[in-house]
Amino acid sequence: MIPVITISREFGSGGHTIGQMVAEKLKIPFYDSLILEKAAEKSGFAQDVISEQGEYTSEFHMMFNNLSLASAGVCEDPQDKIFRIQQEIILECAKAGPCVIVGRCADYILEKAGVPTLNVFIHADLAHRKEHVLARYGQTDVSIDKRLARKDRSRKVYFKYYTDRNWGDYHNYDLSLNAGQLGEPFCAEVIVAAVEKKGKQ
Amino acid sequence: MIPVITISREFGSGGHTIGQMVAEKLKIPFYDSLILEKAAEKSGFAQDVISEQGEYTSEFHMMFNNLSLASAGVCEDPQDKIFRIQQEIILECAKAGPCVIVGRCADYILEKAGVPTLNVFIHADLAHRKEHVLARYGQTDVSIDKRLARKDRSRKVYFKYYTDRNWGDYHNYDLSLNAGQLGEPFCAEVIVAAVEKKGKQ
Repeated sequence: MIPVITISREFGSGGHTIGQMVAEKLKIPFYDSLILEKAAEKSGFAQDVISEQGEYTSEFHMMFNNLSLASAGVCEDPQDKIFRIQQEIILECAKAGPCVIVGRCADYILEKAGVPTLNVFIHADLAHRKEHVLARYGQTDVSIDKRLARKDRSRKVYFKYYTDRNWGDYHNYDLSLNAGQLGEPFCAEVIVAAVEKKGKQ
Repeated sequence: MIPVITISREFGSGGHTIGQMVAEKLKIPFYDSLILEKAAEKSGFAQDVISEQGEYTSEFHMMFNNLSLASAGVCEDPQDKIFRIQQEIILECAKAGPCVIVGRCADYILEKAGVPTLNVFIHADLAHRKEHVLARYGQTDVSIDKRLARKDRSRKVYFKYYTDRNWGDYHNYDLSLNAGQLGEPFCAEVIVAAVEKKGKQ
């Protein structure tokens, strides 16, 4: 039985592309923006809100959340609502069969639900990530260094808040791969080999 | 050109065995206890002193070191001497050609010297490590949980002290592999494939 493959990744490391390659090689579904679409449909929020709030947060938001009406149980905090809905979608995806899921604390959510997974973390050196992000998304008013630092920070805080684990900590993953050094196709090959190995166990 | 392969590992994770397998497959030298022997010869310390002081330390030792005659430059601290000698040996090993080096901050030492490396971190879940350590070293008066916790802690402190980096932090490695989940032979295969890939670049 092929496990569900979860891919956590640094922004600009190539994790999305590697996930796609793995899904194609194994002929299984690939969930990244599909989760966004489903979550937008279920929640009524726009996709770009889900995209921003569904993986990123700030200490400020978390502090505010702790003081808010949402915390008092008067209404559900939008970020908590998005997390809850994404969680439901992730569990549905995994229930439907083997697949690749990128980001959104899928490793944690599936572990808690007792679903067998292969958990992968993709990272890369800063120079590689900058090049990757500029090629994919282009320049903005904010410097590339600041953009990367913000994304890293807000993913870490988000992951910590919802899982009480440290994002990128090796304990959470079966494989952590430096895609900048090893290349995306090689990383995809290693993941497929690991899936096949785990599937036989 | 094959890079030097450095293997950092959690105690009881199987990193030593994986390193041996990689060296055999690539027909290159394997340095683990050989470094101990050479360091003992060069320093005049017994091998078990090197084994204990050459990868492990405590916050207490570091605090004491900062207050000691060694810090005042009156004499060299034994642990610093062992680090210095191991460093020389690691650089000599790397200079002689491709090889596998286990532990002893080799990743950091070789990076600083500009030697191309493939840096690997091997870890495993606690149950796997306990089983491994008990099978290899047997029971002692100290509980297995305490033994593992102590080793982890003292390796982390040692690594931090001599490199100012965090041991196990994914930024330091090309590959981090969970040998408990993936198995030692599979980990060795992945490392060999990565070496061959990097060698072609």
